[in-house]
Amino acid sequence: MRLALGIRYNGQAYQGWQSQLSGLTVQDKLEAALAQFAAQPISTLCAGRTDTGVHGLMQVVHFDTSVERLPISWVRGTNRFLPPDIAVQWAQPVPDQFHCRASALTRRYLYVLSQSPVRPSLDAGRVGWSMHALDGDAMRRAAALLVGQHDFSSFRASACQARSPVKDLRRIAITRHGEGERCRWHFEFEADAFLHHMIRNIMGCLVRIGRGDAPPDWMADVLAARSRVVAAPTFSPAGLYFLGPLYAAGWGLPPEATLQAGGAAYDGPP
Amino acid sequence: MRLALGIRYNGQAYQGWQSQLSGLTVQDKLEAALAQFAAQPISTLCAGRTDTGVHGLMQVVHFDTSVERLPISWVRGTNRFLPPDIAVQWAQPVPDQFHCRASALTRRYLYVLSQSPVRPSLDAGRVGWSMHALDGDAMRRAAALLVGQHDFSSFRASACQARSPVKDLRRIAITRHGEGERCRWHFEFEADAFLHHMIRNIMGCLVRIGRGDAPPDWMADVLAARSRVVAAPTFSPAGLYFLGPLYAAGWGLPPEATLQAGGAAYDGPP
Repeated sequence: MRLALGIRYNGQAYQGWQSQLSGLTVQDKLEAALAQFAAQPISTLCAGRTDTGVHGLMQVVHFDTSVERLPISWVRGTNRFLPPDIAVQWAQPVPDQFHCRASALTRRYLYVLSQSPVRPSLDAGRVGWSMHALDGDAMRRAAALLVGQHDFSSFRASACQARSPVKDLRRIAITRHGEGERCRWHFEFEADAFLHHMIRNIMGCLVRIGRGDAPPDWMADVLAARSRVVAAPTFSPAGLYFLGPLYAAGWGLPPEATLQAGGAAYDGPP
Repeated sequence: MRLALGIRYNGQAYQGWQSQLSGLTVQDKLEAALAQFAAQPISTLCAGRTDTGVHGLMQVVHFDTSVERLPISWVRGTNRFLPPDIAVQWAQPVPDQFHCRASALTRRYLYVLSQSPVRPSLDAGRVGWSMHALDGDAMRRAAALLVGQHDFSSFRASACQARSPVKDLRRIAITRHGEGERCRWHFEFEADAFLHHMIRNIMGCLVRIGRGDAPPDWMADVLAARSRVVAAPTFSPAGLYFLGPLYAAGWGLPPEATLQAGGAAYDGPP
């Protein structure tokens, strides 16, 4: 039987998603908890690997198992063995043809940026930071230059394992929350898939433009260069949240994992 | 010279505000950072001590020092020596008659409660939790019975050092954020001062009533008993935020610390 799970986690304490010998990754903690609950080893695949310090609002994994339990038992039983900063949100039996990575139609991320003369404290590790005021219109003009199908090599980490640097970036929505010099910026990204560090590299360029240190058109130059060296430094992982993948309605996954006419909601902002 | 500071902190990693031999309190970290910046020992008084795991959105402290620096230098210089989860927000020279505790006209707290069948994960340590749906109207009717000047002995921890159990509870505002079975509840409290554990003990009773395990009128019985044994267990510290004290405009403190006709704003739900 194939099972899909929705997972939420705070990435601050972990060395990213993907299993490592250290055992200090979210996947390691999840698989250890699943093994304790199921009393047999369980290997999972995920929809989108997250880096060290990046958070997951709705990571999706799947695995095959001979253990038969009610979905609610998988949720509650696994959560008993997970650390406090990781929790299974839902479990759903799926057809064997379902693959959490290959079946995903689109993926969404959110970057939360605190604009304030004072560095984060209460939210340290949960938001990025700019001590300078940002120009939303300039950032929106620059972001619009990235939307569409492009070769995103300029925003790709050297360690990236993707087969192709061409991705379809479908949406970047930039919204400001709060007035005055202290406010929050939300950057929502949607694409068929993302390259390694792609969002954090785009964020570095957007913030440079938002501060007025480069004009919006500079983003087109960076994109056209197809070279990592021209882009701004990789931005902090602290404010990055994987909102999750969306799938076709036919798989029977919960509404928050299903592509819908009206779009899917996340219960955020985090 | 007397100086007032506004401090923000995430209480998860600390044994509360007040200095202890362990050195693992917010006050210990603040005074160590101030001493490093000022190159002389500095002792602080605070407006409201917070318990282990309780957060501060705007704690206010004051101290006397012979060191003369610009306010912005106190902020940036002290923050350099503070851990990432504590930061000075502002510094303001004040008259010697100002006393952060005695001069406070009113104090405000926020309790953030997550209502969800699944326990917190991304927000572990930052929100309280109810796995059961809560009845907002029932909680509001119960809360209204507490507003006013009362003997709050039923909600007072045995270790409480307050001279009198009589406090003037000026406001409890209960708001729901989000629809469906998963939502957030915000409980805002304002009083001249609070007893030790008073809000967490009130929260325990409100949640019991919100779950339907006691009628709203039960709150009047608890209040009238003036005995801790009748109230519900002390609720988790995780969702409790000290929004801070408010002072008369004459002291010249920043707007967020000053009692105003329109009320003072805090920057957003944490």
